[in-house]
Amino acid sequence: MAISSSLEQEIYQQPQVLQQLLISERAIIQQLATELQKRQISQIVIAARGSSDNAARYAQYLLGSVNGFLVTLATPSLYSIYQQTPQLKNTLVLGISQSGQSPDLVAVLAEAGCQGVLTAAITNFSDSPLAQQADYVINLNAGVEKSIAATKTYTSELLALAILSTELSQNPSLLTTIDTVPNLVEKTLTFNPNINQLVERYRYMKHCVVLGRGYNYATAFELALKLKELTYTIVEPYSSADFWHGPLAIIEPGFPVFVIAPSGKVLPELQELMQTLKQRGAELLIISDQQKILELAQTPLILPPDIPEWISPLIAIIPGQLFALNLALTRNYNVDQPRGLQKVTETR
Amino acid sequence: MAISSSLEQEIYQQPQVLQQLLISERAIIQQLATELQKRQISQIVIAARGSSDNAARYAQYLLGSVNGFLVTLATPSLYSIYQQTPQLKNTLVLGISQSGQSPDLVAVLAEAGCQGVLTAAITNFSDSPLAQQADYVINLNAGVEKSIAATKTYTSELLALAILSTELSQNPSLLTTIDTVPNLVEKTLTFNPNINQLVERYRYMKHCVVLGRGYNYATAFELALKLKELTYTIVEPYSSADFWHGPLAIIEPGFPVFVIAPSGKVLPELQELMQTLKQRGAELLIISDQQKILELAQTPLILPPDIPEWISPLIAIIPGQLFALNLALTRNYNVDQPRGLQKVTETR
Repeated sequence: MAISSSLEQEIYQQPQVLQQLLISERAIIQQLATELQKRQISQIVIAARGSSDNAARYAQYLLGSVNGFLVTLATPSLYSIYQQTPQLKNTLVLGISQSGQSPDLVAVLAEAGCQGVLTAAITNFSDSPLAQQADYVINLNAGVEKSIAATKTYTSELLALAILSTELSQNPSLLTTIDTVPNLVEKTLTFNPNINQLVERYRYMKHCVVLGRGYNYATAFELALKLKELTYTIVEPYSSADFWHGPLAIIEPGFPVFVIAPSGKVLPELQELMQTLKQRGAELLIISDQQKILELAQTPLILPPDIPEWISPLIAIIPGQLFALNLALTRNYNVDQPRGLQKVTETR
Repeated sequence: MAISSSLEQEIYQQPQVLQQLLISERAIIQQLATELQKRQISQIVIAARGSSDNAARYAQYLLGSVNGFLVTLATPSLYSIYQQTPQLKNTLVLGISQSGQSPDLVAVLAEAGCQGVLTAAITNFSDSPLAQQADYVINLNAGVEKSIAATKTYTSELLALAILSTELSQNPSLLTTIDTVPNLVEKTLTFNPNINQLVERYRYMKHCVVLGRGYNYATAFELALKLKELTYTIVEPYSSADFWHGPLAIIEPGFPVFVIAPSGKVLPELQELMQTLKQRGAELLIISDQQKILELAQTPLILPPDIPEWISPLIAIIPGQLFALNLALTRNYNVDQPRGLQKVTETR
């Protein structure tokens, strides 16, 4: 397939962008980790929207389990609209935003500054209003992202968070693993060469759900967002646990369900759910590295084997990005300029 | 209409259940508030699923803005599956669950106990496993909830949280306001007598979104859950701010959008979004007390006037419950036993 859209180019730029980030930002992230340890901070409040909010979900699990950090997703309207804010003492307040522009996110960091709390920003624009409010700025250096749907900035945000986690842990095996990410992403980009044919079956799909849990709760949300932005499908992401608590009622024969199911501790529970879904006749699209799991799927999306679960969100989103891109192309949609969206969204 | 289902009975029991809760649980909640103040705790981690998780969303905004508490929604799989948990020091860990049964929620409170952290449970079963893990048990006393879809236990959970907020604040005007809730709910139950006709238009609605922000972010999630459980519609709830960041692309002429829009600080921003949606031809169903806002709607759902925003989620969900009930009846669905669900959902 000829590379034609910015979106496609940006998806394929990811290995190189991630490699670059590993080199350019390690020092500043090390400094931030040292400062957190010096101040005995073990709690982070994250302000983010859209894809960046999905990166924040990854941080909840990664920094929670590997580093014992309590990670809170901020409620920006308390800062921007209500102007009645929680006490942030002893936290790091972290803004994550490609553009660094959205006033509600800037308001969270500004309030943190007023409360004398440590702040940091992860952004693709180191001179943005968000960056200007931050004590530490982690620059994604991803190059301009022309497509409205975020891809390379999303995986870069995940990697920045993963570097922070490894620097905090100082566990040598994690430090080694993280250097393998760019290669793994590159490999994964080649793993489903027939994806442009696989998507044909879903040409007229109106709605679906995406399930994931733990580390890949983030991936479920991000894949859902790509499908919404690019293919205008009605998609709801769920934790597989939340899905049992009510939403399961919507499943009827033929209902399409994506499951993010790489090897890891949550896989047995996901497998149980996939079997229930199969019994109820759901159409399963499964992203996994395990042959036995992929056999449950009508449409298997294959991952490379032996990926540690904690970095799997960086890898598992790749077939999702390619699926959304190709489905949008099959529907003859403009993948760089989805209807009704702008690259920089400013919300109060 | 003859009252026939448990669901309908339970919806109409709400004024009485809430009145009872105001009397029976004030003392224990006062004790909990005093203990929080004595220990200088200003942070709460909440573990909940389903409707109870929506109550937790209310707590984020209410306790955040009125009391300056930082409220974190827990990531239960870190406690139950990964067994690598965040440090919870200086927090209250609060479990909210109708049944008090789900092992993943019990695991969060058990870990809090191991870490020597204060715990509390809000539940309809004071002898449940969740309650047994808790230092303080707030008993909803809502009577048996036979219908699988939670209604009276949801509003009771909101009220328990509102009582906690007022007891922490000791603001006399809040204490007076909270006593008006049962009457306001009773009044609201009579406000849309034609709802059984209004739902006819949506007999074949396959999907919709529900928007809310701030305090009523919780209401958007809870209405979405009722519509999913009871009517099998594909429904996604959003913060209006998040909706601008990508999902707006799915809107095309005729797309049904519920907006939770009672008077309050977020209303101007919601109004801007409603106008954009109207320009794009969306079908608007609006829950509001303001005539000017209701005029934007194809289907207005009317609230009583002059409700303080901080208690509006207790009131704004009522027309939503009635809408979901009546839509399910119009579709000839079993409203007490939605397909494929059980009352007590136990997730790991």
